[in-house]
Amino acid sequence: MLRIDIISGVPDLLTSPLETSIVGRARDKKLVEIHVHDLRDYTTDKHGKIDDYPYGGGAGMVMTAQPIFDCIEKLTGQREYDEIIFTAPDGDTFEQQDANELSIKQNLIFLCGHYKGIDQRVRDELITKEYSIGDYVLSGGELPALVMTDAIVRLLPGVLGDAESALNDSFQEDLLEAPVYTRPAEFRGKSVPEVLLSGDHNKIKEWRFETAKKRTKEKRPDLYKKFNKKH
Amino acid sequence: MLRIDIISGVPDLLTSPLETSIVGRARDKKLVEIHVHDLRDYTTDKHGKIDDYPYGGGAGMVMTAQPIFDCIEKLTGQREYDEIIFTAPDGDTFEQQDANELSIKQNLIFLCGHYKGIDQRVRDELITKEYSIGDYVLSGGELPALVMTDAIVRLLPGVLGDAESALNDSFQEDLLEAPVYTRPAEFRGKSVPEVLLSGDHNKIKEWRFETAKKRTKEKRPDLYKKFNKKH
Repeated sequence: MLRIDIISGVPDLLTSPLETSIVGRARDKKLVEIHVHDLRDYTTDKHGKIDDYPYGGGAGMVMTAQPIFDCIEKLTGQREYDEIIFTAPDGDTFEQQDANELSIKQNLIFLCGHYKGIDQRVRDELITKEYSIGDYVLSGGELPALVMTDAIVRLLPGVLGDAESALNDSFQEDLLEAPVYTRPAEFRGKSVPEVLLSGDHNKIKEWRFETAKKRTKEKRPDLYKKFNKKH
Repeated sequence: MLRIDIISGVPDLLTSPLETSIVGRARDKKLVEIHVHDLRDYTTDKHGKIDDYPYGGGAGMVMTAQPIFDCIEKLTGQREYDEIIFTAPDGDTFEQQDANELSIKQNLIFLCGHYKGIDQRVRDELITKEYSIGDYVLSGGELPALVMTDAIVRLLPGVLGDAESALNDSFQEDLLEAPVYTRPAEFRGKSVPEVLLSGDHNKIKEWRFETAKKRTKEKRPDLYKKFNKKH
């Protein structure tokens, strides 16, 4: 079973997304084990601090090396970890392929940055992988850790009710999905496309494939190029 | 003051990130108003359902149009919204520039998708903007809404303790940040770069700029190209 350890200076932020919905149910069903570690439990600073002013001046506080080293070394002393991941704006861009690969690992650590950043020595010495979830700045690495956890956990066997569901997703085939509709067939004067009501499964499949291609070509020419190369 | 309304089928997931840390404190200080709406409060289905099977078959459930229309129309009847945003894997890629632009708006709605998707008629009729936070599939739009909320809220005046902090961020200048260090100057035999201890502010500034450029060139040639064009 996959085990994920999330290390954070604001562990309370992580609570509800890890206890609700898909991830919460996966934990209840023992399909994944997730542990949250509070960096404040590891600091040797007498005031309980886990950050300090940056050398060389400048705005913002920097997370100190000591509590992070102690926490990660405690964990790596207990079991072997496949990756120790830091969520950083200058990390590699996290994509579906990374979620796929991480979902077959045994043990993962996510270290969440906060404040202005973390002491570079942590990154140099302990971190095996740095991921950014996108080109925007967040107030901490907690939401990125939650995003990656969600992307990974939903791929684990038994997590999604219908096994087919994850394989059909956008990006798994380098194509966006076709539009979806549900009842009623007419809502406020707007109808569902005829073909979806036809019961003709080949026609539906073809319509979905053609619409997905058209949509991808329009909205994401980069993905469409990737798709075309493979087909 | 910016007001954000988040509409979700699993509102409990949103709780802790909206009550903790930067976003929680910004709400406490009345620097932003955030309201969460439970779609189940708006459904007219007698079993309280907010989803149904997709027309044309296939895996996964589709969120129905009715509760979403009713919720959004209630809100738009009360005030004018600048954008009604749907978090979708096939939306435009959300970037720092979008956070900057949204942070000066008055009223925003985030509609979180869940299950396999939402009835396309919602997207066609109500949504003014669709954003994806990255090329990976999540189990719902709640984490993307939280990510965008965090990226926006931290830019609001008064939210970050030190006003300079947000302006120095990665991506604001198309450059990643230089590495940061804090005390102690030596930790487990690893030292902080000499220049940061020199007290020579011009030299430090130059070192940071050069290191930031080098790092960006290595890790994100695409950003570096953008930076070079502007300078």
